[in-house]
Amino acid sequence: MAPPPPSMSPRMTVLILRVLTFAFLLISIVILTTNTSTLEAGDAEFKIRFKDVYSYQYMLAAIVIGMAYTILQVALTLNHIVKRNAETSGDGNLVFDFYGDKVISYILATGAAAAFGATNDMKPLLALFGFDNFVSKGYASASLLFLGFVCTAILSVLSSYALPKKV
Amino acid sequence: MAPPPPSMSPRMTVLILRVLTFAFLLISIVILTTNTSTLEAGDAEFKIRFKDVYSYQYMLAAIVIGMAYTILQVALTLNHIVKRNAETSGDGNLVFDFYGDKVISYILATGAAAAFGATNDMKPLLALFGFDNFVSKGYASASLLFLGFVCTAILSVLSSYALPKKV
Repeated sequence: MAPPPPSMSPRMTVLILRVLTFAFLLISIVILTTNTSTLEAGDAEFKIRFKDVYSYQYMLAAIVIGMAYTILQVALTLNHIVKRNAETSGDGNLVFDFYGDKVISYILATGAAAAFGATNDMKPLLALFGFDNFVSKGYASASLLFLGFVCTAILSVLSSYALPKKV
Repeated sequence: MAPPPPSMSPRMTVLILRVLTFAFLLISIVILTTNTSTLEAGDAEFKIRFKDVYSYQYMLAAIVIGMAYTILQVALTLNHIVKRNAETSGDGNLVFDFYGDKVISYILATGAAAAFGATNDMKPLLALFGFDNFVSKGYASASLLFLGFVCTAILSVLSSYALPKKV
């Protein structure tokens, strides 16, 4: 029987971080898109949805891009594992990982920041109209997106170290 | 007479990008901190300052951190040049550059995103009260911060490529 590996392989660490990123983004998008509050004042009815907040629209775009990229990366990794050429990946893939992780981590960071910024500054006004629940869900969704960003930022550090040397 | 170098040295490119970052952040902070609008309605007077917007407070913190880091990096580079050991910098410095550029670029990106998000979503309300000028200056300041982020993101790519290999 072969002895267990002394530490987790880098490829497995990366895979776990990608799955974590996907999980955080999935929960974030579910909370975001189901975030609706209704205020009844006599005969009138006021409804607020995530689409009414520009920053939440950008946030949605950021999450969708992040999820698509993560699915692509997991598929590429599984393809490598199935083909058993795990240790012979070309330099092109490492460069793609580097720029991909970098750009996607910026997109996720700005999505979370825009959502936090807008939620924080609209909070007094929204609370005035009794939309506290809408605000809470906005924070929850942005927090999960932030956790997804943290995973991608760690992946970006790892893919920077894996970068092939020029010259 | 020595022939001119065929292309700009990497150290000079980095120095130019740092000076550009500093210039963008400096103009951004000046526009941000002088952004005040007053609305006179009969006897009443309403004043809005950048401090009244939470996202602008975070933006200010991001710019200050970015400027401090950039000054430190320029000082370190000039110190290297003066000591004429430009080509013998240790690995520790390269690792500091890598993590520094990475973290600062995230801070600048989130500062700009929070400001854009909040400005965009408060725009209708602020315009209603005649604070259009306040909104315009908010956008101008956030745009300059974004340009500062772009410079730092390029620096982060450069410092990733310069990263020493971990065996």
